[in-house]
Amino acid sequence: MKAQKIKLAVDAVVFGYEKERLYILLIQQKFGPLKNQWALPGGFVKNGEGLQQAVERELREETGMTLDYLEQLATFGDDIERDPRAQVVTVAYYGLVNSSRFVLHAGSDAEKTQWFPIHDAPKLAFDHAQILETALERLKGKLRYQAVGFDLLDKEFPFSDLEQLYMTILERKIDRRNFRKKMLSLGFIEETTKQAAKTNGRPGKLFRFNQKKYKKLRKQGFHFELKFA
Amino acid sequence: MKAQKIKLAVDAVVFGYEKERLYILLIQQKFGPLKNQWALPGGFVKNGEGLQQAVERELREETGMTLDYLEQLATFGDDIERDPRAQVVTVAYYGLVNSSRFVLHAGSDAEKTQWFPIHDAPKLAFDHAQILETALERLKGKLRYQAVGFDLLDKEFPFSDLEQLYMTILERKIDRRNFRKKMLSLGFIEETTKQAAKTNGRPGKLFRFNQKKYKKLRKQGFHFELKFA
Repeated sequence: MKAQKIKLAVDAVVFGYEKERLYILLIQQKFGPLKNQWALPGGFVKNGEGLQQAVERELREETGMTLDYLEQLATFGDDIERDPRAQVVTVAYYGLVNSSRFVLHAGSDAEKTQWFPIHDAPKLAFDHAQILETALERLKGKLRYQAVGFDLLDKEFPFSDLEQLYMTILERKIDRRNFRKKMLSLGFIEETTKQAAKTNGRPGKLFRFNQKKYKKLRKQGFHFELKFA
Repeated sequence: MKAQKIKLAVDAVVFGYEKERLYILLIQQKFGPLKNQWALPGGFVKNGEGLQQAVERELREETGMTLDYLEQLATFGDDIERDPRAQVVTVAYYGLVNSSRFVLHAGSDAEKTQWFPIHDAPKLAFDHAQILETALERLKGKLRYQAVGFDLLDKEFPFSDLEQLYMTILERKIDRRNFRKKMLSLGFIEETTKQAAKTNGRPGKLFRFNQKKYKKLRKQGFHFELKFA
């Protein structure tokens, strides 16, 4: 076999949630043919480095952000010209964080690093617009059958905060009554005895996500599907 | 940056369905340190080759099988020693076919190629057991929210064939009455006017999968979730 000249990279799609808006974390390229263009944080995998390790390192180096967990999204390499420098295959990861909790600082390979509202982001380099689109679809899909985003809310939250999180990510209104009924029926969201601060003149209890119970249910093969029809 | 020494491979998890059993397609290694061991079909991506193209080529070369579509499963590369030869990252794909329709013939890199019942397969080389397990989980999950496997059935099929397909893949019994009711309510399975051959002394109509309708529904954002509780 001829020596393989394909390069392997990793990219991170980091969604931020803050004040009812969804953001995407981008860096501005400092070097190379796409200098000054905005892109997802990422870069080449180092020899002896695992994929997850590589994407965490790139994210840290380029944005100063340390994340415990990024989920593998997909690998992009059907288009052999997706990167003008060489044939580069990239393994993309994604995660969702509370953007207010992170102070960003551009690293050595990045000119700037910044959160952009998801639908108000600059044109992206490479095929990163497609990677972002794929990640957004995955995230929306995941909301339907997994407990997503509870770490973005306060530990005890008014139910309307959960509704708002779902509406923001799904980019649509949801039927609040059905959503509440269904969510509470799943058994991993508990009503506390505490009262939420009044909003819209409608006071209500605070709720809590029971992660232990959720994990236990999942182990038992528990599945759910939320509908937002 | 130091020259990247990581190699990029592709592997194919091809499930075969035949006579109410699920099979996995394996090849026996002809060369290398894992000579004679059974493994998933796959190999290194060639320069200038896209990922999907590479996995289709490897499958064809090693087993003689030509598949139109394999879906990307996941990329394995956290364990840098998963391959004893070098640091190899592999992009795994999976597909489901009617195994009776394929005549297998081992190619240049494979000693033998063979279908094995999914739970009666030999020990697999590399981390291929883990890749197979991941694919099987994905396939089971997919049954819940996508129309999977209709191309494995006859064009017009008794409903019991569909039930059996689901039970085989899920490896469990399902509540037949609920399954039928739910499936038919989704709108993409049509009852024909034709009578099925008698089985179990219970005659019934033949059914048909309306792919056009299914695709249209999907485009409209249609989602479903089957429960097999």
